Amino acid sequence: MIFDVLTLFPAMFDSPMEESIIGRAVRQQLLDLRVHNLRDWAQGKHLQTDDTPYGGGDGMVMKPEPVGRAVAALKEKSPDSRVLLMTPQGQPFTQRHAARLSQEAGLIFLCGRYEGFDERIRQSMVDEEFSLGDFVLTGGELPAMVMIDAIARHLPRVLGNAGSVGGDSFADGLLEYPQYTRPAEYQGMKVPEVLLSGDHARIARWRREQQLLRTLERRPDLLESAELDEQDRQIVARLRNERKKI
Amino acid sequence: MIFDVLTLFPAMFDSPMEESIIGRAVRQQLLDLRVHNLRDWAQGKHLQTDDTPYGGGDGMVMKPEPVGRAVAALKEKSPDSRVLLMTPQGQPFTQRHAARLSQEAGLIFLCGRYEGFDERIRQSMVDEEFSLGDFVLTGGELPAMVMIDAIARHLPRVLGNAGSVGGDSFADGLLEYPQYTRPAEYQGMKVPEVLLSGDHARIARWRREQQLLRTLERRPDLLESAELDEQDRQIVARLRNERKKI
Repeated sequence: MIFDVLTLFPAMFDSPMEESIIGRAVRQQLLDLRVHNLRDWAQGKHLQTDDTPYGGGDGMVMKPEPVGRAVAALKEKSPDSRVLLMTPQGQPFTQRHAARLSQEAGLIFLCGRYEGFDERIRQSMVDEEFSLGDFVLTGGELPAMVMIDAIARHLPRVLGNAGSVGGDSFADGLLEYPQYTRPAEYQGMKVPEVLLSGDHARIARWRREQQLLRTLERRPDLLESAELDEQDRQIVARLRNERKKI
Repeated sequence: MIFDVLTLFPAMFDSPMEESIIGRAVRQQLLDLRVHNLRDWAQGKHLQTDDTPYGGGDGMVMKPEPVGRAVAALKEKSPDSRVLLMTPQGQPFTQRHAARLSQEAGLIFLCGRYEGFDERIRQSMVDEEFSLGDFVLTGGELPAMVMIDAIARHLPRVLGNAGSVGGDSFADGLLEYPQYTRPAEYQGMKVPEVLLSGDHARIARWRREQQLLRTLERRPDLLESAELDEQDRQIVARLRNERKKI
């Protein structure tokens, strides 16, 4: 899978994409990450990529022509790539998008200044607009790295022995259960007895209940779309009742 | 303001935090960013920072002792720092959190593996848990960078001439209006006439209506908590009516 990135700050991608699991995946050629400087497609004496907004106002707006030329050039090499725009105005990015986008042949990430892209960029060359969440950043580079990381985890062999995406938070629409490791006691706090019991069925039941409880306490909104079976629904009903009594 | 980061991959922070607006702010000492290797607080022959989970299961869990020692050491130097844990189980991070956290004396970001922190870390040393959104990443480093960027933008003089946080998306709870810059015509697409009119009052009205329209179309959920005056509410009512007719 090809990840093309268009940015005015290509060097930002150096260290995060070299380290950790993504870096290893790039070295093993499990994914092909190409970071491009948008300025390479700028023209004129000043290689201008942004300009002041029509109608006045603070900040600069990304010009349409350099982005248009850049996208056309990248699409020549990978015609099936989808063009994604990083913007607070996009749809909130979720694990479902990550799984779906990991099936694409290629993705082109447009990273701009958040004072805004010229509207005609959105209209003429962007397939999807994504936002990480309801906050504002100095640029689209960090969101692109986050999306690359979330998507790449779904590619074959990228996670290796580090785990599988199946057991993740949100994989079944719920938060994860609490985890414990050695020591059995830390500053007076003990690991729950059930986890030391060796009774795998009991451990599985406890973990599922903790997952449901944690989601109910922290993110009840997720329960509406989570994949629950009849037993899960009974547990949730009981937990709701117990909470009412407190 | 002091930003301490605890991570097993400190080098990931090199290039993103050197480039762009955050890098300039660090060089100008507008903020103090300190990235620490959690392994410096590990003990034993193997300097172990994670271990297998009690009760079985894939992946590794972050051990409590190294994190505990690290947080204690950092708090000795900045006792008022708040400890933040990056986890998909946290509350979704928003612009309001960014503004509030920018008022703190210091922040300590705990970045771990997403297979999980030992639960006792959450219970004994974490002030707040944050999630960027409903997706899973290979680690907490990119979310920490995103939060540092979003928070640092609120610090005095960090944005410089690049703009102000007041005009951002979400600053008043709405998405931004469409932006246009030169050329006036791009591939047959023209800049809306009003923006070329020089009539500032008309431009302001058009932009506000576009802001409301865009939020209504893309993120109607935001309208419920946005700061709207009587005139805004009338516009939204009219836009809703017009959409019904289509």
